[in-house]
Amino acid sequence: MAGHWFCEQNTPGYSVQWKVLQQLHQETTPFQELTIAELAEWGRTLILDGAVQYTEKDEFVYHEMIAHVPLMSHPHPQQVLIIGGGDGGTLREVLKHPQVARVDMVEIDRRVVEICKAYLPGVASGFEDPRTRLHIDDGINYVRETGQKYDVILIDSSDPVGPAIQLYSRSFYLDIYNALADDGMLAVQSESPLYYGQIFDTVVANLKDIFPITRVYLATVPTYVSGPWSFTAASKTYDPLQIADDTAIINGLKYYNKHVHRAAFALPQFILERLG
Amino acid sequence: MAGHWFCEQNTPGYSVQWKVLQQLHQETTPFQELTIAELAEWGRTLILDGAVQYTEKDEFVYHEMIAHVPLMSHPHPQQVLIIGGGDGGTLREVLKHPQVARVDMVEIDRRVVEICKAYLPGVASGFEDPRTRLHIDDGINYVRETGQKYDVILIDSSDPVGPAIQLYSRSFYLDIYNALADDGMLAVQSESPLYYGQIFDTVVANLKDIFPITRVYLATVPTYVSGPWSFTAASKTYDPLQIADDTAIINGLKYYNKHVHRAAFALPQFILERLG
Repeated sequence: MAGHWFCEQNTPGYSVQWKVLQQLHQETTPFQELTIAELAEWGRTLILDGAVQYTEKDEFVYHEMIAHVPLMSHPHPQQVLIIGGGDGGTLREVLKHPQVARVDMVEIDRRVVEICKAYLPGVASGFEDPRTRLHIDDGINYVRETGQKYDVILIDSSDPVGPAIQLYSRSFYLDIYNALADDGMLAVQSESPLYYGQIFDTVVANLKDIFPITRVYLATVPTYVSGPWSFTAASKTYDPLQIADDTAIINGLKYYNKHVHRAAFALPQFILERLG
Repeated sequence: MAGHWFCEQNTPGYSVQWKVLQQLHQETTPFQELTIAELAEWGRTLILDGAVQYTEKDEFVYHEMIAHVPLMSHPHPQQVLIIGGGDGGTLREVLKHPQVARVDMVEIDRRVVEICKAYLPGVASGFEDPRTRLHIDDGINYVRETGQKYDVILIDSSDPVGPAIQLYSRSFYLDIYNALADDGMLAVQSESPLYYGQIFDTVVANLKDIFPITRVYLATVPTYVSGPWSFTAASKTYDPLQIADDTAIINGLKYYNKHVHRAAFALPQFILERLG
């Protein structure tokens, strides 16, 4: 962060620079380099291995869309599992659903949780909720070994470098399938179809192979400089496009609403053609 | 473009950098600084006053969405006026509609047209079409003085600095209203609701004051680093959200389709609340 600007090199020919007011924390954990910075225009920001994970100002887009689309289309999301997401943003959104009885959260890097609780309390607000059980563990092992069956599983992974790379594999998705109840549903963040097209293609193809219903949906995250960001929902029974009957409206959201839910599944022509 | 990188300063605390393979042209016209560069990952790029207007790789998003949303919802878009858009991208899309009989295009800066024809022929492809009439003129004057009545008017302006600033004023929109047929429709690019929120608010408020039907719609342009980009459609009769009956499907588009048309009007909660 020389010269009080933080530079993120997105691709060899493209980078962005944020003005830094203050670097609040930096450490090398056993898994990754972890930085918390206060940016001039985006507020406090979590940076892992040199990549901005989210900023306080726009984190609501990603966290609302990974959580509420599956939780609003599953009619009884009582048992929920989150893989990754140690910052707590996805957990915070999941806990807004009154039907949720228990959330298991599996994060490999204890320091992400501890540091986000210290520096980003507005995001990491759900760890004290009595429904939350935090497991510091490798998501791969956890899913393979759990005897639990979940209604909804969310994979809130960082980009497929560092510890997250296994979370995109077909064998992991098979274990996920087996950890889901007979009418269970999965949602994963599946990267930018433009910037990380090969990963996007792989995730969707692997899930289509395993689940009877697979649907891509999109959101626009201002600080992800890539156009549309993708999520993929994969389901055994319910169609993620359809909002379940009798689903309570959640007040106070900043991105998600029922129109946005349905619209997120309308894919631009170039993405449709990519999916074949 | 020192060191073969082009830097665009979006806000005081945020900038992006593109690797430049070659600078193809640069001049100061009577209206603005005009640059054509070949970027490493985005192809040929039009830059006006230091701001990227579009790149070859993703220009289709903006141009398809400003043109096809109004032209697919108006049942007989025969007489069309484009204000600005001297690069020709919007013109190219308008001419794809078989019902279009005539397009008047009013661009203030002759050099934008000439240079885009020379360096971006895939974008500036519509100027030789017999339906096109190019007027090198100030859009403000043209609209005030034209006796013509248009079915659809598109305002394809650059950001409200330099020559484009008048194109956001209420008095200009009143002249537009008068230049539209009794069932005419307008679409304008209305900036990023996040980065240029005040301009966005002003455009929408001015149009709501004048037109019976005003609707905001969104698209995600990868090289506009701002999350959703907004357009506003304002109409005397037809609802821009509804695709007209019997509208022919246009083949070969890369972003627009009928699902995307409707989905573009589903606004995230923070934009709905901003609109009040």
